[in-house]
Amino acid sequence: MKTQPHATAVVLDTFNAPLRLESVAVPEPSPGAVVARVDLAGVCGTDVHLQHGHLPIPLPVVLGHEGVGRVWRLGEGVTTDYSGNPLREGTNIAWSSNIPCGQCYWCVVAGERTLCESRKVYGVNQRFDEFPRLSGGWAEAIYLQPGSAIFRLPDDLSPEQVIALGCAGPTAVHGVIEVARITAGDTVVVQGSGPVGIASAMYAHLAGALRVILVGGPAGRLRLAREIGVGDVHIDIFEFPDAAERVRLVLDSTPGRRGADVVLECAGVPGAVGEGWEMARRGGTFLALGQYTDRGAVPLNPHIITRKQLRIVGSWGFAEKHYLGHIQALPQLTARFDLARLITRYQLRDAEKALADMAAGSVMKPVLDMSQGS
Amino acid sequence: MKTQPHATAVVLDTFNAPLRLESVAVPEPSPGAVVARVDLAGVCGTDVHLQHGHLPIPLPVVLGHEGVGRVWRLGEGVTTDYSGNPLREGTNIAWSSNIPCGQCYWCVVAGERTLCESRKVYGVNQRFDEFPRLSGGWAEAIYLQPGSAIFRLPDDLSPEQVIALGCAGPTAVHGVIEVARITAGDTVVVQGSGPVGIASAMYAHLAGALRVILVGGPAGRLRLAREIGVGDVHIDIFEFPDAAERVRLVLDSTPGRRGADVVLECAGVPGAVGEGWEMARRGGTFLALGQYTDRGAVPLNPHIITRKQLRIVGSWGFAEKHYLGHIQALPQLTARFDLARLITRYQLRDAEKALADMAAGSVMKPVLDMSQGS
Amino acid sequence: MKTQPHATAVVLDTFNAPLRLESVAVPEPSPGAVVARVDLAGVCGTDVHLQHGHLPIPLPVVLGHEGVGRVWRLGEGVTTDYSGNPLREGTNIAWSSNIPCGQCYWCVVAGERTLCESRKVYGVNQRFDEFPRLSGGWAEAIYLQPGSAIFRLPDDLSPEQVIALGCAGPTAVHGVIEVARITAGDTVVVQGSGPVGIASAMYAHLAGALRVILVGGPAGRLRLAREIGVGDVHIDIFEFPDAAERVRLVLDSTPGRRGADVVLECAGVPGAVGEGWEMARRGGTFLALGQYTDRGAVPLNPHIITRKQLRIVGSWGFAEKHYLGHIQALPQLTARFDLARLITRYQLRDAEKALADMAAGSVMKPVLDMSQGS
Amino acid sequence: MKTQPHATAVVLDTFNAPLRLESVAVPEPSPGAVVARVDLAGVCGTDVHLQHGHLPIPLPVVLGHEGVGRVWRLGEGVTTDYSGNPLREGTNIAWSSNIPCGQCYWCVVAGERTLCESRKVYGVNQRFDEFPRLSGGWAEAIYLQPGSAIFRLPDDLSPEQVIALGCAGPTAVHGVIEVARITAGDTVVVQGSGPVGIASAMYAHLAGALRVILVGGPAGRLRLAREIGVGDVHIDIFEFPDAAERVRLVLDSTPGRRGADVVLECAGVPGAVGEGWEMARRGGTFLALGQYTDRGAVPLNPHIITRKQLRIVGSWGFAEKHYLGHIQALPQLTARFDLARLITRYQLRDAEKALADMAAGSVMKPVLDMSQGS
Repeated sequence: MKTQPHATAVVLDTFNAPLRLESVAVPEPSPGAVVARVDLAGVCGTDVHLQHGHLPIPLPVVLGHEGVGRVWRLGEGVTTDYSGNPLREGTNIAWSSNIPCGQCYWCVVAGERTLCESRKVYGVNQRFDEFPRLSGGWAEAIYLQPGSAIFRLPDDLSPEQVIALGCAGPTAVHGVIEVARITAGDTVVVQGSGPVGIASAMYAHLAGALRVILVGGPAGRLRLAREIGVGDVHIDIFEFPDAAERVRLVLDSTPGRRGADVVLECAGVPGAVGEGWEMARRGGTFLALGQYTDRGAVPLNPHIITRKQLRIVGSWGFAEKHYLGHIQALPQLTARFDLARLITRYQLRDAEKALADMAAGSVMKPVLDMSQGS
Repeated sequence: MKTQPHATAVVLDTFNAPLRLESVAVPEPSPGAVVARVDLAGVCGTDVHLQHGHLPIPLPVVLGHEGVGRVWRLGEGVTTDYSGNPLREGTNIAWSSNIPCGQCYWCVVAGERTLCESRKVYGVNQRFDEFPRLSGGWAEAIYLQPGSAIFRLPDDLSPEQVIALGCAGPTAVHGVIEVARITAGDTVVVQGSGPVGIASAMYAHLAGALRVILVGGPAGRLRLAREIGVGDVHIDIFEFPDAAERVRLVLDSTPGRRGADVVLECAGVPGAVGEGWEMARRGGTFLALGQYTDRGAVPLNPHIITRKQLRIVGSWGFAEKHYLGHIQALPQLTARFDLARLITRYQLRDAEKALADMAAGSVMKPVLDMSQGS
Repeated sequence: MKTQPHATAVVLDTFNAPLRLESVAVPEPSPGAVVARVDLAGVCGTDVHLQHGHLPIPLPVVLGHEGVGRVWRLGEGVTTDYSGNPLREGTNIAWSSNIPCGQCYWCVVAGERTLCESRKVYGVNQRFDEFPRLSGGWAEAIYLQPGSAIFRLPDDLSPEQVIALGCAGPTAVHGVIEVARITAGDTVVVQGSGPVGIASAMYAHLAGALRVILVGGPAGRLRLAREIGVGDVHIDIFEFPDAAERVRLVLDSTPGRRGADVVLECAGVPGAVGEGWEMARRGGTFLALGQYTDRGAVPLNPHIITRKQLRIVGSWGFAEKHYLGHIQALPQLTARFDLARLITRYQLRDAEKALADMAAGSVMKPVLDMSQGS
Repeated sequence: MKTQPHATAVVLDTFNAPLRLESVAVPEPSPGAVVARVDLAGVCGTDVHLQHGHLPIPLPVVLGHEGVGRVWRLGEGVTTDYSGNPLREGTNIAWSSNIPCGQCYWCVVAGERTLCESRKVYGVNQRFDEFPRLSGGWAEAIYLQPGSAIFRLPDDLSPEQVIALGCAGPTAVHGVIEVARITAGDTVVVQGSGPVGIASAMYAHLAGALRVILVGGPAGRLRLAREIGVGDVHIDIFEFPDAAERVRLVLDSTPGRRGADVVLECAGVPGAVGEGWEMARRGGTFLALGQYTDRGAVPLNPHIITRKQLRIVGSWGFAEKHYLGHIQALPQLTARFDLARLITRYQLRDAEKALADMAAGSVMKPVLDMSQGS
């Protein structure tokens, strides 16, 4: 590189203020690191919360924790991806957004890397004003630190298919497959039809659910779900605004009206929790997957836990193994579902618009497309 | 039997009205049944609720779902107890209070006999005005129907030791050992120091808990617990009426102030649930064992479930296998703890007084003693 | 019924002797029982063993533990099937072959109804010379005793689809789904391509296996499997008679050559077990599903269990809940696989021929078809 | 340090040749490392195998993977132990023998650090002819590399109590508590009465086993076990050399002669495995904990796995969390068992004698005591 290349990035300086673009010098990768060109970067509901300061993060940051792209420069010693597949300049890759420390009680003793308190997260807690600056996905390039879980993409997967579920994919692998442990034959309720709900419903289908009952909205999201084959029964919360009515409809769709074997909460709204407990059968499982931000207490009746012998479990984000699991499952998912239909493209400079549309639920999955110019 | 023998029973005719005594003819056992003399009958917190109509039961009933006694008459075909030990007239026995149907979805498919909706429960849902009338433990005799799980008592166990934990013993076997799955080395919080809390703490010790932190009251109950070696740390809720303070004290008693591996809720008060979630470590387990009656919703923050990746489980009563487990564990428990110290004796005619003392928490375990005359 | 109807049955009088046909009076059902016309009855590898006296059963018996048919007469009190769906004369039904006692240690305490020692099994341990005589499936009618798990068939399932997997279907539900606990994303080896192997591979697909490696033979069975979409990789044991070579081929088909997450032994040959242990990855699971008959000891290296931290589990037959699970899963299975292609039809009088073809592996699933005359 | 201190170490140069002593300069610890004085070092059955070349290790090495001692020098940045307790020069410590890499598939994805293929093990795979040379416990000092799991010992534990179970302690935490998952109330068989068998039996007691049946020998070891309260039933394999007879004795000691809920194989002899399968009840668990070296295949009947629905699990060594678990459990163990009685002391120069006595089983736990001079 005679002239040092530059990359444009979307920077969040101040909470609740507009984002701005800045062109940054792309550093050479140190040993063990990789610099990647970003092709597509996902916009997630969490980004909306980040912009509004709902989560404690350092500023300034380059947003974006979901991305696919190509290897630009390989740092010394990097020859393969996380699974041992060879990497070269130009190889199509995706990467896990977070790097647990690997040393703490949670990483080593508890064996729960998602609970690591000092993990680095691209697009969330890596400062823009410190080296290597390009630590978020909403940019033309990203600097992937040593320890990053990078995955070469199979040739028959398009970048669109890989980005379509974004972080909701590995989040569902963690919550739905590992924690809730969906079993073939289960009747499953999914609360929420945003990306996490859609991904969770897809994984419930993949795991052999007897029936998937999708409770969500608005109508456009449910229609899209139905069109691509996600969910066997669809209940629109705007059509049925009364929770008790929704519970009745769900029970009517379960064997013996006993309720669902598993309820997957992907709504993010605290009020969904009590409703979900009512939808689960006695001895059933309820997964709190969407309660990512702290919205305080809501009325809940603990008698139900005892009386129904519920198993209520929580799952927080994902770690490398869940990202690997999602990458491995993508061929199965794409064979069943037209993932690319989930996305809506925006230019980098329209990141604000993408965030607004995500907040409104008017699109399923906004994606920043670098090929369209910044 | 030339003259048909009679037995005195305590009858509940009307909710919130005084109990009365009635002398009843003792029937001969039909094939498969057993008639037993009752020696000691336990008084349980649930009996207080039953008297006040908090649970939907048929009236009239003879109360009493906990008892020990001796075989009086064996019905045709009954030669052994539930474990295959021989039974004779005079053999010391105890019996499980409930008989699941063995035919329904819950008994056969789900394999959760505690969820059986048509199980018969002595002292709760067997009418006094129908044959065989003597279907409760607060009486000089009880008619144990075919299908009852009856257990011969080992010679070295006294009736006092067997009745001391009452139904709290098998309830803890179900909740603490089978559902919460205490593991040797766990740091355990027990919320509540009534019989269920004491039994759960004992089983936590038995299962190798590293440390048992008992949060309860009033002071007399905690002192008794301490004296017989139940609990390693004792926190009096009357001395520390602030929940946040109690949470701090619990955290101070756990490794790295991370919180407890397992929290066993045995308080019965809905407000204990949210407090218990705070006491559990991330990735920990919370058991709702005491939420037996429906007291409605309380404020709870579901974000904690997701953030901490909690596992929250419920356990409802017990079935035959848990009763068997408790009977088998009694020699281990009595070797460690002076169980007989838990009980306070009453005559059958003082059942009202026993209920009142139980409600006040002024005694740990009231027991009706038939040898003291009715 | 003015003239009492008769039904022809295939009777096994003596081990290793020819079967014979006998016409028997069809009794009226007692209360709780059901008499069914049999339409199709499956021939299972176990029937070959039964004929040769490899299992200790009473004689004479009507063989046949797999069947589908129609309600002929409903005994008093029978109005619904096991799931609560209404039954009428003429309703299409299938039934579980065995009735656990519901009373013993295994049924009640261990909660493992498949281990019940006194369960009744149609076509296996119900004597032909005792009432109701018609207690096997290889007959024009069968008398289903009270306590039988009978299931009404959905209208869109053909009898051929229901009988196609025979008892291998619920056996796989038990072993593959409940005991081995296949998880979406698992790489799975299936050893054996008879009905149990095919059913297990189908359930592995249904449960979201990343890849199913089918190791079996002869070539015709593997070809049929490939044609209906069962298995992603097929290894013919006749083409690769060397076990070490097969292990190498399997490792080559697993991520990182680490071996399979789960190995499902459905071969029935003891020699498959040690080979399967080699095919499993460290930390993997091996299910012994096919070791149904006792063929004695074979050389096995237990060091592998410790070194690889294997989890080796066994599963014996099935109980009602597994039969229910299979019936519920049939619509999903038929949507993916052309089940009807598995069967080959025979007349009742050709039962001997069906057994011989089964023993030779020249057909996948022989079925006795009553509509073709006895 | 003006004059660089030296420490004497026991060096294995050649398999099957005598050990020798060498005095080595003690290096200053690099950042993150700790140099410790060794007070007591355990001799393990594995050391016997190492000397004879039964395991593939590099030579030369300083043997010894079990040790307790005191901090001599703290490397830069080291201020606390693995649990956050402060470390100073002179602090009493113990340390885990192995350091998993924390980066590989087994460490990160499978979450099984015991399966890490590149972990460093003191006294086993760290060469004596490379820096820092002092990488084994049989020496007056050991150099603990960065990443070592070091634990400050509670004041009320003596070094003898800590070394008494050696690596058998954390090995039992892994196998008995985590993998086999002993539950309170279980009837447990322990095969083998060497250190692993004794440690496993102690943990079975700690976890609330109803009854522990210890099958082992020679008589001296069983007598010692009985004297310190380990095991409820003791079966001497020299007194009962017939395996079938031993199986009968075990069945006689289990409820209903059904066999043990859990069988813990700690014998190391392949022949113990088939015998253990016979001792387990149907639906029971068998742990292969002692099959540490590869002694080849033995006859085993896989039909038993299917028929009895066994769960057979393996456990390989231990990782940091198991070592932590053992350190935490020591106060409970010492309160129940006189651990110090297990050990026999030797001088460093008598390491050969210690190995020979271990091989002969004439002592329970040989320990090299540095205070007695080298």
